[in-house]
Amino acid sequence: MKVAKFGGTSLASAAQIKKVCKIVKADEQRRIIVVSAPGKRHKEDTKVTDLLIQYAEERLAGQSGEEAQARIHGRYAEIAEELGLSREAADRIAAHLNQSLQYEQGEAPGRFMDRVKAAGEDTSAKLVALYLQSVGKEAVYVNPKEAGLLVTGEPGNAHVLPEAYEKLQSLKQQKDIVVFPGFFGYTPEGELVTFSRGGSDVTGSILAAAIQAELYENFTDVDSVYAVNPNLIAQPKEISVITYREMRELSYSGFSVFHEEALYPAYQAGIPVCIKNTNNPQAPGTMIVSERAIHENQVAGIASDKGFCSVYVSKYLLNKEIGFGRRLLQILEEEGLSYEHTPSGIDNISVILREKDFTPGIERRVVDRLRLELHAEDIIVERGLALVMIVGEGMRRSVGTSARATSALANAKVNLEMINQGSSEVSMMFGVKEVDADRAVIALYDEFFSKTTTQAGDMAITLNA
Amino acid sequence: MKVAKFGGTSLASAAQIKKVCKIVKADEQRRIIVVSAPGKRHKEDTKVTDLLIQYAEERLAGQSGEEAQARIHGRYAEIAEELGLSREAADRIAAHLNQSLQYEQGEAPGRFMDRVKAAGEDTSAKLVALYLQSVGKEAVYVNPKEAGLLVTGEPGNAHVLPEAYEKLQSLKQQKDIVVFPGFFGYTPEGELVTFSRGGSDVTGSILAAAIQAELYENFTDVDSVYAVNPNLIAQPKEISVITYREMRELSYSGFSVFHEEALYPAYQAGIPVCIKNTNNPQAPGTMIVSERAIHENQVAGIASDKGFCSVYVSKYLLNKEIGFGRRLLQILEEEGLSYEHTPSGIDNISVILREKDFTPGIERRVVDRLRLELHAEDIIVERGLALVMIVGEGMRRSVGTSARATSALANAKVNLEMINQGSSEVSMMFGVKEVDADRAVIALYDEFFSKTTTQAGDMAITLNA
Repeated sequence: MKVAKFGGTSLASAAQIKKVCKIVKADEQRRIIVVSAPGKRHKEDTKVTDLLIQYAEERLAGQSGEEAQARIHGRYAEIAEELGLSREAADRIAAHLNQSLQYEQGEAPGRFMDRVKAAGEDTSAKLVALYLQSVGKEAVYVNPKEAGLLVTGEPGNAHVLPEAYEKLQSLKQQKDIVVFPGFFGYTPEGELVTFSRGGSDVTGSILAAAIQAELYENFTDVDSVYAVNPNLIAQPKEISVITYREMRELSYSGFSVFHEEALYPAYQAGIPVCIKNTNNPQAPGTMIVSERAIHENQVAGIASDKGFCSVYVSKYLLNKEIGFGRRLLQILEEEGLSYEHTPSGIDNISVILREKDFTPGIERRVVDRLRLELHAEDIIVERGLALVMIVGEGMRRSVGTSARATSALANAKVNLEMINQGSSEVSMMFGVKEVDADRAVIALYDEFFSKTTTQAGDMAITLNA
Repeated sequence: MKVAKFGGTSLASAAQIKKVCKIVKADEQRRIIVVSAPGKRHKEDTKVTDLLIQYAEERLAGQSGEEAQARIHGRYAEIAEELGLSREAADRIAAHLNQSLQYEQGEAPGRFMDRVKAAGEDTSAKLVALYLQSVGKEAVYVNPKEAGLLVTGEPGNAHVLPEAYEKLQSLKQQKDIVVFPGFFGYTPEGELVTFSRGGSDVTGSILAAAIQAELYENFTDVDSVYAVNPNLIAQPKEISVITYREMRELSYSGFSVFHEEALYPAYQAGIPVCIKNTNNPQAPGTMIVSERAIHENQVAGIASDKGFCSVYVSKYLLNKEIGFGRRLLQILEEEGLSYEHTPSGIDNISVILREKDFTPGIERRVVDRLRLELHAEDIIVERGLALVMIVGEGMRRSVGTSARATSALANAKVNLEMINQGSSEVSMMFGVKEVDADRAVIALYDEFFSKTTTQAGDMAITLNA
């Protein structure tokens, strides 16, 4: 039994939905289908979810939202018509949609927003179920509420509750193909709550874990996960097999193929995940698994992300002070900051933070507290940093990976602000200035993916020996 | 005005003490002399401090300690005789010493131990003052109690109290040369407490800071601080100028020239420190200063230390959990552990600890707590690690230092368990297996100190460009 999730571009038009249904029909094991809201049909198009958000914001601001509402209805009506659904079926779907868009007086804004956003996936699921039926497939739309997809209550930031897994097991008993809207669930009290943006991936992963699927297929619009950002390198290497841990490190920065939290349920249940292309289902895609054979590819990919800053704190004999690091982190925590890394010297610690969280106001407070409470001597804040990561299981086991990486960066004239590599880790992190980030990624890709042994010269031969 | 401190080997015999006095007489600015207890005269000799500790331990165990006591008296009597001091002076010193060695019924063992240990430096100071007088120098023994060297009370682990500095200023008014015993001070309540072992360096630094000396000279038995452990490299490069921060990083591991805490008072007061050789006072020594010109020597030295272990903790989506790192450090703190570094990946943190602190019992408790309280998934403890450090101000500002270092290590077939380099830091840390540590240090020394540009080859030329 497989769970197949289809992303926004796979639902963007009737033509795309026909591809989805062809894919579903091609494999009897595809028993649970999770769908997103219609995405972009072309580069300038607007995603239905964005129209829904615009509509909800206008309504919450006391406006009519009429234009957005009309565009939303138009998108679905066009799809229904092109799919050849009956007038009656199309009207029924439109009526349901309309109901979801009603603003009830006194409703909490967050709840209304979630309800409106969820209508995108929900309507998609109804359309797909009807279309599958119309082409002779036994298919049924299943609502997350009746299926028991129970989640926590913070609007726009749902997390699955443990008891959901047991309830969702009953989906296994469905003899028809289940078409399930992604992106949202319900609290035990019956309130609709969406996951964070892109959360249909999460829904698919939860269902796959709940029914112990043999495979969770995640259909998107690329043939595979690439070893590097394709905006930086033309036709980069396609990754055929990658581990959960590697994928997690890559998805952290610069790899938007998959929702950051989506892997967790599959990872926990040990369900392999396959990233595939709706537009080219023959391509093998990228398999995400627990373990992979480490042979020639010690390095799985290169990732990077910008918008970081570092807070350097030094104090003479800091190293002798039990609790200094803990109190430093406590101050950050009390200021609501989460941190990324804490490289340290003997008498100094640097903390790497997301720059957007470290506003000038928070910076002032944190610096003051570090001085007053920890008696820090030097405090230096550096902004405009990027983190560049080499990701690969077993990379650490091979002598010379860091030498190859740092030499490639030095040759590209990239100055390293920080290096962080811990024991048993699957990644090596380099902190660089933002202006150097792309050059750093290209240099590392070139070193680990483009170079032949001959090009790499004597050193690479020695290192690989 | 200069403060000159003389270490154990400079006080080991009458011949050595004569050298000390010659050095003192050679420079009118050497107004405050801090002395250690007599050290070893030859490799198989025993330091007086060790004899004193042996004696105190025997007394505390209910034994007579007679033999140790006789050896201690013998050492001083021999020195007094060879210095040509009068019988009467020698007897007075011996009587004082005897008094210090009396065990008072009911005295706390820690207090007794400190009192006995301090007698080594105290007797040295009296001898040196008498000898200076005997050769016609106006010199006076000054006791730390009358001078106001006030410290905290934990036996064997004194720390100077802020108010001591003001009191000690009066030493400036002394018209005679002050001979001051190192290693101990007194609590405000009048209890004698010693610094940690090697603490005469600390006394000298405190006095230099208090009187705003133009220089703090630290006389030992080597011509200078070396760029690497001379047990690993024959005739290593001598360091002529080094910054406090560099010295601090080097003294942390493998550089026992100077007490770890001794630099702090001088550093705070901005007093330059000079490490010199009693046996070769003409050698310029090593100057420790606030800032140095960074030209060809980006790297000041290579240090290493063994006996570390790492605790690797991973948990899926750990990165999303605010407070995980802080709670991890809190657990270590509650178990009385201080840590060295915390390199981290996306979903994992490694903590580097001193192996001797991480006993099997503590390990079991910590691992249990990490699992129960933090729900850590994988916890891996790795023992037998060494930390190898490259230390140098401005090193970070130069592109390619890490490339040169990691390439040198790769060529020496050293696998890097960890790398840690933070922003604005003066050191780069590599975690390696203990068996690889010496090879790593030699490879790094070779790269940064032995290689000519030609030997370093194309890469070094590029990197230095």
